Amino acid sequence: MTTAADLLITNGIVMTLDPHGRIIENGAVAVCGETIAAVGPATEVGSVAAKETIDANGGIIMPGLINTHTHAAMTLFRGLADDLPLMTWLNEHIFPAEARLDADKVHTGTLLGCAEMILSGTTCFCDMYLFEDAVARAASSAGMRAVVGEVLYDFPSPNYGPIEKGFDYTRHLIDAWHDDPLVTIAVEPHSPYLCAPALLTEAADIAREHRVPLVTHLSETRKEVHDIREKYGTTPVGHLAGLGVLDANLLACHCVVLSDTDMDLLQQHNVKVSHNPESNMKLASGVSPVADLVQRGVCTGLGTDGCSSNNNLDLFAEMDMAAKLHKASRLDPTVMDAATVLRMATIDGARALGLDRITGSIEAGKKADIIVIDTRKPHLTPMYHPASHLVYAVGGSDVCATVINGRVLMKDRRLLHMDLEKIMADARQIAEAIRSR
Amino acid sequence: MTTAADLLITNGIVMTLDPHGRIIENGAVAVCGETIAAVGPATEVGSVAAKETIDANGGIIMPGLINTHTHAAMTLFRGLADDLPLMTWLNEHIFPAEARLDADKVHTGTLLGCAEMILSGTTCFCDMYLFEDAVARAASSAGMRAVVGEVLYDFPSPNYGPIEKGFDYTRHLIDAWHDDPLVTIAVEPHSPYLCAPALLTEAADIAREHRVPLVTHLSETRKEVHDIREKYGTTPVGHLAGLGVLDANLLACHCVVLSDTDMDLLQQHNVKVSHNPESNMKLASGVSPVADLVQRGVCTGLGTDGCSSNNNLDLFAEMDMAAKLHKASRLDPTVMDAATVLRMATIDGARALGLDRITGSIEAGKKADIIVIDTRKPHLTPMYHPASHLVYAVGGSDVCATVINGRVLMKDRRLLHMDLEKIMADARQIAEAIRSR
Repeated sequence: MTTAADLLITNGIVMTLDPHGRIIENGAVAVCGETIAAVGPATEVGSVAAKETIDANGGIIMPGLINTHTHAAMTLFRGLADDLPLMTWLNEHIFPAEARLDADKVHTGTLLGCAEMILSGTTCFCDMYLFEDAVARAASSAGMRAVVGEVLYDFPSPNYGPIEKGFDYTRHLIDAWHDDPLVTIAVEPHSPYLCAPALLTEAADIAREHRVPLVTHLSETRKEVHDIREKYGTTPVGHLAGLGVLDANLLACHCVVLSDTDMDLLQQHNVKVSHNPESNMKLASGVSPVADLVQRGVCTGLGTDGCSSNNNLDLFAEMDMAAKLHKASRLDPTVMDAATVLRMATIDGARALGLDRITGSIEAGKKADIIVIDTRKPHLTPMYHPASHLVYAVGGSDVCATVINGRVLMKDRRLLHMDLEKIMADARQIAEAIRSR
Repeated sequence: MTTAADLLITNGIVMTLDPHGRIIENGAVAVCGETIAAVGPATEVGSVAAKETIDANGGIIMPGLINTHTHAAMTLFRGLADDLPLMTWLNEHIFPAEARLDADKVHTGTLLGCAEMILSGTTCFCDMYLFEDAVARAASSAGMRAVVGEVLYDFPSPNYGPIEKGFDYTRHLIDAWHDDPLVTIAVEPHSPYLCAPALLTEAADIAREHRVPLVTHLSETRKEVHDIREKYGTTPVGHLAGLGVLDANLLACHCVVLSDTDMDLLQQHNVKVSHNPESNMKLASGVSPVADLVQRGVCTGLGTDGCSSNNNLDLFAEMDMAAKLHKASRLDPTVMDAATVLRMATIDGARALGLDRITGSIEAGKKADIIVIDTRKPHLTPMYHPASHLVYAVGGSDVCATVINGRVLMKDRRLLHMDLEKIMADARQIAEAIRSR
């Protein structure tokens, strides 16, 4: 039994999300350094002598949420353009704004995203964007756990130039961030429609060689499925299968338009899926058959996607959406129950990123990625079932403490290690330039 | 020009929601007594001498949100049971809990709902439940604007007993609350499937005689449509049309399952609709063809429904859901744009309740039902378009001031005139009894 700890979080309902789904009614978690030392009843673990104590005041202590798909720096384009046809939105608003990006702006946008995520209870995110070295630096300086990878596609990148340089850039990232306590590098080809077969197979080879995740957009829209079928005579999933790219280290984002055969392939190859309901709805891509994927045992996490198609990074809102959307879509109130959705946002998200041995649940020996929910509020009163509240009633602003890798990053809604005013001022300045173009 | 005011709200972007959709970049609102005296640029209106001033700090000043359909006291059953088949949920959980209600418990539950609504920027709600005199008293004591009516149905009520007494109770409410500055009484037959034709026509007669709103659930589920067709040979809307109940003072809640003929009837009779997307999704009722209704010019407001099918009363979340759901359902990103959804939650909601002459927009002469959004937060940074933020990024917890009928009820997230700790303690005690049954 641990007798001393650096940090003690106590006096709350501990939702462990461990393999037994254990819930400890009045529990506590002791943290030594980066690591969870003990979890148990407050009457036992709560009596550990600790340098710092967080009192959950009867609220909920749970693993931090895991955002399996975002483009964090797109916080800079939050609400720049909405409610438009997809190509108008991309060609007239998003692409012109992105053409003006550089590493500094991406760094600022990512810091802004990290601030928002830490404040809303997300402790780990998977990012795909340009200038990802700046993303890794921002995540690291913010203290967030992150899987980051430079987006790779056939045409020249504003960051690395031609694709050969993109592979070099990715290999450089893998070397530079090797063994980092927070940042994992991934190989991230954009999608089957923006990446030639040779790009996809080389990306997969690099990922396998370095044992890092491979991340891509897959089967997001009907147009993608139509275009890939025209070009390759099969579905996007079938196309990747044919290239030998489907694999247990592949995280496929969106997966909105799937045939039964596609789902069979994802299941057989143990591919991981990132479900992004709010983005899929806002862009009118459709409704992913996630309930079927989950039923087949396909590991599925949740993602917010970028802020220009959501327009926030609040995973609590994403949980609520995931739980409700499929009930309406399937006309069945029993699909996607609260417990399932909660696992998607935590331990299944960790598994999707290959990080389930270190995060996604509260278990002794795992890294301390923990959040506390303040339930002393009218909209969370009364409370019959914590899982129900977490999915259907809690919002990101109800998170009152965020701990990542054992470090308290937010307490009482205040970011302890970020200069939020400066980050917001920098972001406003960048937005001013975008607006005035 | 007003030269003195009781309350000045200044230094914010004023979204008036007036007939011209005027947005004042740096604006102010002056309030005298219950009434808006002036709205205009801060350089003019902001110089008025005022007894009390609220600084919006560059945030958004807008009309309070209007919840056109809820059962406020069901806060007591928040999260009691979820993810179940409809009849299991009703028969095994909700009905047994409701059988134990009395006026005191409804009063407590409604106060809890009012606290939540005031904190999340709702200034007016339309309620249907049991013991509505207690609801009216709770709304009045909380300082909220409300349209309330006792639910009427064929079987005996735990409150009034047989239906004849229900009409008496309703008439008594109409007399008792006549000319109240905040509370309007409505006549509220539950639905075509729980109300015989004679009940529906008598309810409509009472509403017309007293010139008060008539509120009912209508066409919520496929089962309802099936059952009404079996019994009366037509759709629920057609049934009400045949009874002469469709009218401009009728607020029809849900309207999920509608034929083209149904929509024609609603349009021809100028019936008002309350759209409740989160409840319809969670209960797997389906997706209302609201984009079609709006296109036909049918006045449509937003509602949260009760907390057991949502599970909160946050109309900002409801706006986000309404904007996204129909894009996914119609596979068209241009439907239900932010401006449309914002009107639904404000001026169109007021119109749906027959209150658009006094609330729903910021215009001189209207009652001062106003909220302020604090936008100095990472998830609201940067801001390109206020309407986009209000629908896609703001949550109820971003509301930093709520004014109803000229009275400041919430400032800096603190309720100024309610004993929140006592209300929450009372609600927890009631929940404890429900849990232990």
